[in-house]
Amino acid sequence: MAKKILLLNGPNLALLGTREPQIYGTTTLADIVAATRAAAEARGWTLDAFQSDVEGELVHAICQARGVYDGIVINPAAYTHTSVALHDAIKASGVPTVEVHISNVYAREGYRHESLTAPSCVGQICGFGPKGYLLALEALA
Amino acid sequence: MAKKILLLNGPNLALLGTREPQIYGTTTLADIVAATRAAAEARGWTLDAFQSDVEGELVHAICQARGVYDGIVINPAAYTHTSVALHDAIKASGVPTVEVHISNVYAREGYRHESLTAPSCVGQICGFGPKGYLLALEALA
Amino acid sequence: MAKKILLLNGPNLALLGTREPQIYGTTTLADIVAATRAAAEARGWTLDAFQSDVEGELVHAICQARGVYDGIVINPAAYTHTSVALHDAIKASGVPTVEVHISNVYAREGYRHESLTAPSCVGQICGFGPKGYLLALEALA
Amino acid sequence: MAKKILLLNGPNLALLGTREPQIYGTTTLADIVAATRAAAEARGWTLDAFQSDVEGELVHAICQARGVYDGIVINPAAYTHTSVALHDAIKASGVPTVEVHISNVYAREGYRHESLTAPSCVGQICGFGPKGYLLALEALA
Amino acid sequence: MAKKILLLNGPNLALLGTREPQIYGTTTLADIVAATRAAAEARGWTLDAFQSDVEGELVHAICQARGVYDGIVINPAAYTHTSVALHDAIKASGVPTVEVHISNVYAREGYRHESLTAPSCVGQICGFGPKGYLLALEALA
Amino acid sequence: MAKKILLLNGPNLALLGTREPQIYGTTTLADIVAATRAAAEARGWTLDAFQSDVEGELVHAICQARGVYDGIVINPAAYTHTSVALHDAIKASGVPTVEVHISNVYAREGYRHESLTAPSCVGQICGFGPKGYLLALEALA
Amino acid sequence: MAKKILLLNGPNLALLGTREPQIYGTTTLADIVAATRAAAEARGWTLDAFQSDVEGELVHAICQARGVYDGIVINPAAYTHTSVALHDAIKASGVPTVEVHISNVYAREGYRHESLTAPSCVGQICGFGPKGYLLALEALA
Amino acid sequence: MAKKILLLNGPNLALLGTREPQIYGTTTLADIVAATRAAAEARGWTLDAFQSDVEGELVHAICQARGVYDGIVINPAAYTHTSVALHDAIKASGVPTVEVHISNVYAREGYRHESLTAPSCVGQICGFGPKGYLLALEALA
Amino acid sequence: MAKKILLLNGPNLALLGTREPQIYGTTTLADIVAATRAAAEARGWTLDAFQSDVEGELVHAICQARGVYDGIVINPAAYTHTSVALHDAIKASGVPTVEVHISNVYAREGYRHESLTAPSCVGQICGFGPKGYLLALEALA
Amino acid sequence: MAKKILLLNGPNLALLGTREPQIYGTTTLADIVAATRAAAEARGWTLDAFQSDVEGELVHAICQARGVYDGIVINPAAYTHTSVALHDAIKASGVPTVEVHISNVYAREGYRHESLTAPSCVGQICGFGPKGYLLALEALA
Amino acid sequence: MAKKILLLNGPNLALLGTREPQIYGTTTLADIVAATRAAAEARGWTLDAFQSDVEGELVHAICQARGVYDGIVINPAAYTHTSVALHDAIKASGVPTVEVHISNVYAREGYRHESLTAPSCVGQICGFGPKGYLLALEALA
Amino acid sequence: MAKKILLLNGPNLALLGTREPQIYGTTTLADIVAATRAAAEARGWTLDAFQSDVEGELVHAICQARGVYDGIVINPAAYTHTSVALHDAIKASGVPTVEVHISNVYAREGYRHESLTAPSCVGQICGFGPKGYLLALEALA
Repeated sequence: MAKKILLLNGPNLALLGTREPQIYGTTTLADIVAATRAAAEARGWTLDAFQSDVEGELVHAICQARGVYDGIVINPAAYTHTSVALHDAIKASGVPTVEVHISNVYAREGYRHESLTAPSCVGQICGFGPKGYLLALEALA
Repeated sequence: MAKKILLLNGPNLALLGTREPQIYGTTTLADIVAATRAAAEARGWTLDAFQSDVEGELVHAICQARGVYDGIVINPAAYTHTSVALHDAIKASGVPTVEVHISNVYAREGYRHESLTAPSCVGQICGFGPKGYLLALEALA
Repeated sequence: MAKKILLLNGPNLALLGTREPQIYGTTTLADIVAATRAAAEARGWTLDAFQSDVEGELVHAICQARGVYDGIVINPAAYTHTSVALHDAIKASGVPTVEVHISNVYAREGYRHESLTAPSCVGQICGFGPKGYLLALEALA
Repeated sequence: MAKKILLLNGPNLALLGTREPQIYGTTTLADIVAATRAAAEARGWTLDAFQSDVEGELVHAICQARGVYDGIVINPAAYTHTSVALHDAIKASGVPTVEVHISNVYAREGYRHESLTAPSCVGQICGFGPKGYLLALEALA
Repeated sequence: MAKKILLLNGPNLALLGTREPQIYGTTTLADIVAATRAAAEARGWTLDAFQSDVEGELVHAICQARGVYDGIVINPAAYTHTSVALHDAIKASGVPTVEVHISNVYAREGYRHESLTAPSCVGQICGFGPKGYLLALEALA
Repeated sequence: MAKKILLLNGPNLALLGTREPQIYGTTTLADIVAATRAAAEARGWTLDAFQSDVEGELVHAICQARGVYDGIVINPAAYTHTSVALHDAIKASGVPTVEVHISNVYAREGYRHESLTAPSCVGQICGFGPKGYLLALEALA
Repeated sequence: MAKKILLLNGPNLALLGTREPQIYGTTTLADIVAATRAAAEARGWTLDAFQSDVEGELVHAICQARGVYDGIVINPAAYTHTSVALHDAIKASGVPTVEVHISNVYAREGYRHESLTAPSCVGQICGFGPKGYLLALEALA
Repeated sequence: MAKKILLLNGPNLALLGTREPQIYGTTTLADIVAATRAAAEARGWTLDAFQSDVEGELVHAICQARGVYDGIVINPAAYTHTSVALHDAIKASGVPTVEVHISNVYAREGYRHESLTAPSCVGQICGFGPKGYLLALEALA
Repeated sequence: MAKKILLLNGPNLALLGTREPQIYGTTTLADIVAATRAAAEARGWTLDAFQSDVEGELVHAICQARGVYDGIVINPAAYTHTSVALHDAIKASGVPTVEVHISNVYAREGYRHESLTAPSCVGQICGFGPKGYLLALEALA
Repeated sequence: MAKKILLLNGPNLALLGTREPQIYGTTTLADIVAATRAAAEARGWTLDAFQSDVEGELVHAICQARGVYDGIVINPAAYTHTSVALHDAIKASGVPTVEVHISNVYAREGYRHESLTAPSCVGQICGFGPKGYLLALEALA
Repeated sequence: MAKKILLLNGPNLALLGTREPQIYGTTTLADIVAATRAAAEARGWTLDAFQSDVEGELVHAICQARGVYDGIVINPAAYTHTSVALHDAIKASGVPTVEVHISNVYAREGYRHESLTAPSCVGQICGFGPKGYLLALEALA
Repeated sequence: MAKKILLLNGPNLALLGTREPQIYGTTTLADIVAATRAAAEARGWTLDAFQSDVEGELVHAICQARGVYDGIVINPAAYTHTSVALHDAIKASGVPTVEVHISNVYAREGYRHESLTAPSCVGQICGFGPKGYLLALEALA
């Protein structure tokens, strides 16, 4: 069945690929969005993408997704660890959601081990770099 | 004395009444605003309403309320438990504020038992559904 | 529908109005009971009132209320923060109960922020002084 | 490049598919192993599988994997949350390892939110049922 | 060397000087910005100022500062204690940043003693009133 | 040897059997007392029973038991988790005491996992319904 | 000035002197009351004594003491560590109160190191056996 | 109805009766098994016994018990306080299980007060020495 | 019996009586020492006094007191809450020691509620101002 | 107005500039004292400097500063995080005090994030190397 | 006196010397065992060595050591921090035991600072590499 | 290579051997110093010894040791658990340091399990009585 997917990226992710490329590589957020859209379209799906540094705009996008999208792929970045509002939004929207992290959050500071948003998601994928977005699509299939 | 009231609603509350109506009922946020305004007007008061999913927009509205409104009724929703900024805004505005929660926050997850915003409010009302907003008006009388 | 209400007040509340009147006002517990009863009777309801400094006597009164009263308004005072027994009693009685606090417990010591009794109540009202009892009646309507 | 994969399953997973099939479905551990092996072989890889209820036997298998396997897919089940020894084994083996959980551990008891083993893995995948094992293979590609 | 400075002020700071002047003085945020700009220009530097009550707008401004500004002076106000996103933004931008607080945060509530943002700053200055902004400029010299 | 047993029941237990019989069954506290007394008398022992919702009355009964009874069977109910006074009373009385809980306290809220009273008892029995009282008698044999 | 003193003793203290005399000595509570009264009368004061195992009865006695007594000497025993109600009663009564403990509570279990009641007393005396009551009288002089 | 019982004993229990007999008595684990089997057979039941120092072997035995035994009596010894795997095994097996401890765990170190395994058992019995095993059989009746 | 007493005062106490006399009174440390010595001599005892701001000098004085003094009266001031070394010194010296605090430490910041030194003292007296030193002498009698 | 300043440096700071100069630079404590004194004298102020590894000597110096100095600049080094005595000394002295740290304490171990001494200071400056001392002088102006 | 020593090594230690020799050196577990045995034999003692990745096998070996060995040298590796069972085994065996760690556990992650096993050992040696085993032998002498 | 060793002993250790000899033995600190020096000289090393009850004097001695001594053996006694300053001193001195404790700190109060000083030492030896000092010398070889 053709699915309509919403791809959400949170704070600071717009800087991907432009800072310290020798460390983080040269993959930009635009590259990630393009690759994920290509993979979606290869399945006959459509994908809309939205990035915001503002917690409430992400909340709003999720609320609006209700009844419009069949699945959400979200990288809440720093809001993963502080946002009860995103948790509530995902739960309220009723749209199956997969949480993605580019890095292995368990191998970083202790406060990044807990996710406030994951309990209302279907599942979480972390540590596999940009490929994690493609795995998330696969998980929604 | 006729009062000028500001009614603030926080993140995800715009979805009220449209999701799972068999559970949450069919009262929408528009219904709540209308009923609260009607009750205010029955007292000869006026009421302005504003909903936002963005923490900072709520902070801004409270700052702007200083010297303009005689009372604030606020349901900070998820920001209740994470927002020092809203706490500071309510304190700084100097406008008497009543915190309302539709559900009984004490009967939910532990992290919903603590309110960061309530210490700078006059008081808090929780657990009585949409009627809580009317009780808040009465409390401000 | 005419309701039968039980009004319960906990430890130290018998001193209301007699200590430091310049601070706490001159409203006595008798005044509060009279005003709450008047408001109940104005609705065609009846109200019985009981104050005790003994946790177990309050527990006992709630157990006895089962099948006799249609609603309980309780100010558990200091027992709010220490009594699992009151929590269990309210749950066991099955009588819809509203918790009232005269002061804003969130603006006081940290150990007064948590309520052990509220999870088994319908809801909680705090911070509005003696008027809180009248709001509680309204909430039970 | 052809890879040699070790698939490890931890305590209680041998019961999968035989208990409460109306709830957990009828997918057995044998089914999962077969499907994962098929997916590996479709890539031209080989896969060895081992299940044990004994923490130390899993530790031993990981130690032995050093220099023999190109990747490990492990579902440490209950030992995820208590085993420093598995954490150390994965780190010491030097074999890229992906942690899989069938359920969304974040939506369960609080003590299942922390993973002692994940910090030494490449990444973690949870919440997608048996499909998680296939996503793990894909992540190792 | 002439520097280009970004001056950021967080939530509720727009109210400075207008509330309780007998306590907080009559210095407004505009006064602070003007004085800081004057001090910058006296060094032959330029200074752009931005205030927002929205966490994500501050995050966005910091991301945009990368490669544009030589230094940031930020008073994150309430977000100091709750924002992992600001911490990540400061780190990602790579712009040397000084954190300023008008009051002595250590002499206030316990939750104001910890700064989530300071670890990615060069340093922190607190307790010296509006003069703290000038000290921050001096620190960046 | 013939023993003299004191059977103590704590707060809310007088409601047993009368509330929600479809859930808790129709066994009343009177039934439990009768069955426990019958089992005691079958051993040639005597048994006195006392129920109170008041923590201090239970403390008093235990103090009075010193030198009078050969064993105490106590279900402290909610006071299990909050009463240092009952702990001290059991220790001071010197009468061998068995703590009984009808439900499995470990399968309930976290704060019911700790018993303040058990450390001064001989042992604890929980989870076996009314039969727990009979097991307690057997344990005292 | 002649003072009227109220001597309050809490739970389990009625057993003093009768249990394990080889350890605790043979001083009974009656002995303590007599000695303290004698010391009071030697100063030309009067002393009333009350012991109760019931927290609420002690609360009640303190409430009643308002305007009647010039000082209270209280050994709250186990309620020291659990009773917010006694704390509130002492504060509300306005009667200067000295807290006494026969044993050195700091040399016992950790949960006996904190006193909920001491913050509203004038001071605390612990560790000096029955002599502590006489020191308390002296402290009130 | 004739029942088939599995008696499981955990780490270090094989040393019972041989170490410090003047303290722990001379009852060996063999004695306990024999006595429990005798009591089972007196009811017309059968009993198989297994002791292991290896957590995973106990997990394995419980998994294997599914559909074979009608009840389990287990003394998990030290694993009581650390084993999520045993908790999961008991829950997954679906066999009614009673947890037994020879000593009163509440009267020992604080970390022995919490049982990770008890929440998935029917109930727990502790403090009554070897008799606890017989009480457990009675509880399963 | 004539006793030889050592009076020890800790950090900052040399400032007593000279700072903010309208608040703390004009009693200096010299006054306290003189009054305590007078009271000691009135009993036929002798008293040596020593004040130091250095933790280790107080430790040293207590070590030296072994076999020389019959009792120590100590006000460890701020070191009460941080010094394991003073705790060990009092225990090692074997000299009966009474801890005194001028203010009621329970009515101050939370970290002043715990005393590291009190567990090795005979007892503690706090809240009675300079009179506390005299009560301590009486306690040592 | 000409000010008299006391510059205090705490434990281990005497090693500055001599250890690992390739890392910490070659600025010695003598250099810092000289530069700070020069800056003070440039304002027409005088400055006395004192370094000690002994907590109590720093406490003593602060006590002695009362009425003698117009301002204190202190780097308490490791005692920042453990010394209640220094906190009390600064408060008791009544001399306006600025706390300086050479490194950014927030970017180091967690236990260096809390300052026990800062609450009684005017403010704190950290992270700017030796320049922090000059900023502190400016802050005292 | 000739002693019979049991040398126990825990999980992952079999990999010593084979992984990352440029970092950890080329000393294998076999080398350590040989060197320790040589040192034992030089004293006229005998030494048996056993390594296992299985917690319960180590527990079992310790139980079996009772009455057979005169001393145990154990490196519990990761089980140091999680095994109550090993703690109980060492205590139950009654054999003097020395705990050894190759690395300085205090200089690693916080959860490696606490040892559950050390309280029942004679003592602990950590941080001295393979030489620690020889020091342990010397300590047992 | 001949080494120059500094032997440091912390607070209260001067009392060794003189208090409770029936418990602690009659080994004095002088005996320990003599034995350790003898062992050093047997290796052709020299040893200087210093004991102080003052934390800062120990800090000072370690700072002075830089470039003078080849190794430090330190028993920080009570300061082990409270001194960040000693931790910093050992790190700053750059002299290889071994921490020794006469007793097994893990078998004592919980707050003695953590060592603030050990992370900057080479390693730690505890529990072997005076022999621990000799083992420390051996460890430095």
